[in-house]
Amino acid sequence: MLAREEILRRQRQASDLFCKAGIYVTPKEQAQIEIADFGLGEFEKTGLAVLVYVNTDRCCAKELAMCPGQTCPEHMHPPVENDPGKEETFRCRWGTVFLYVAGEATKDVACQPPGDTSAYSVWHEILLKKGDQYTIGPETLHWFQAGSQGAVVSEFSTRSTDENDIFTDRIIQRMTKICD
Amino acid sequence: MLAREEILRRQRQASDLFCKAGIYVTPKEQAQIEIADFGLGEFEKTGLAVLVYVNTDRCCAKELAMCPGQTCPEHMHPPVENDPGKEETFRCRWGTVFLYVAGEATKDVACQPPGDTSAYSVWHEILLKKGDQYTIGPETLHWFQAGSQGAVVSEFSTRSTDENDIFTDRIIQRMTKICD
Repeated sequence: MLAREEILRRQRQASDLFCKAGIYVTPKEQAQIEIADFGLGEFEKTGLAVLVYVNTDRCCAKELAMCPGQTCPEHMHPPVENDPGKEETFRCRWGTVFLYVAGEATKDVACQPPGDTSAYSVWHEILLKKGDQYTIGPETLHWFQAGSQGAVVSEFSTRSTDENDIFTDRIIQRMTKICD
Repeated sequence: MLAREEILRRQRQASDLFCKAGIYVTPKEQAQIEIADFGLGEFEKTGLAVLVYVNTDRCCAKELAMCPGQTCPEHMHPPVENDPGKEETFRCRWGTVFLYVAGEATKDVACQPPGDTSAYSVWHEILLKKGDQYTIGPETLHWFQAGSQGAVVSEFSTRSTDENDIFTDRIIQRMTKICD
């Protein structure tokens, strides 16, 4: 649950981060940035600021802004009707982000998940610095955490239907609730 | 037909434009920038520098760099096998670009096509400045020309198969030929 005032403040923060990354967003777009707290009410620990540039039946592009050390919690994109599930490419534009995907667990991982570690099950670490990118297929469990500066990440993907995402932590509510 | 030396020079130019637009590309990516002269041998008039970030069976993301006044000639993306044709969103990151699409002709258009005007048939003008974007569906004839500063444009799309593009000017060869 997020208050409108906090949302406006977080939108400004995200816009400032995009600006640091050299990415211009219009005032109208700034007001459309989604501040997702995943229903946990601890945005700086577990959350994501998302600007959707385009999302059609066929493809999607977003810009993600992350606070220092902020985590997007573990989830995957299942098949939905005729769609085999969302495929995503993450390209780091600014800062660093640690991406964890299914696969051989990395020894001495750089990140610790926030809160309940039982909601995190994949430990193959991929470090993305400015100019690095990584593509994940449908139904791939993944989570990511920004480094100490925060991060700006471009996401190029097939159609996005966030409401269908399956989170390992079943307490999570993907769609942000706003209180007046 | 382009000489390798010219390609290297144009790749550096494109990389400098990306840098002006705040977009970092790695040295490896710089060497992968496609310098497309459409077989016309007059790159600064008719041409495009293209960095493909990702192009899977389902979606694609590219960065386009354009010289001042440079034109990407009129073409459309036809259905190919089971694919209904490429859908594209152009987002202007830096400079300005004039996009022409099928539809009501704009009076007093800002651009003149380079060379043979009979190869240009659509005149509905859309001005894209920094932060503006426009989505076109499959089989939509379109062409675009950079403003006086040049332009950097992000393209988010479904799968790209450039070799299937249909150009109004049948002299055009989409795939760049390199001479040693």
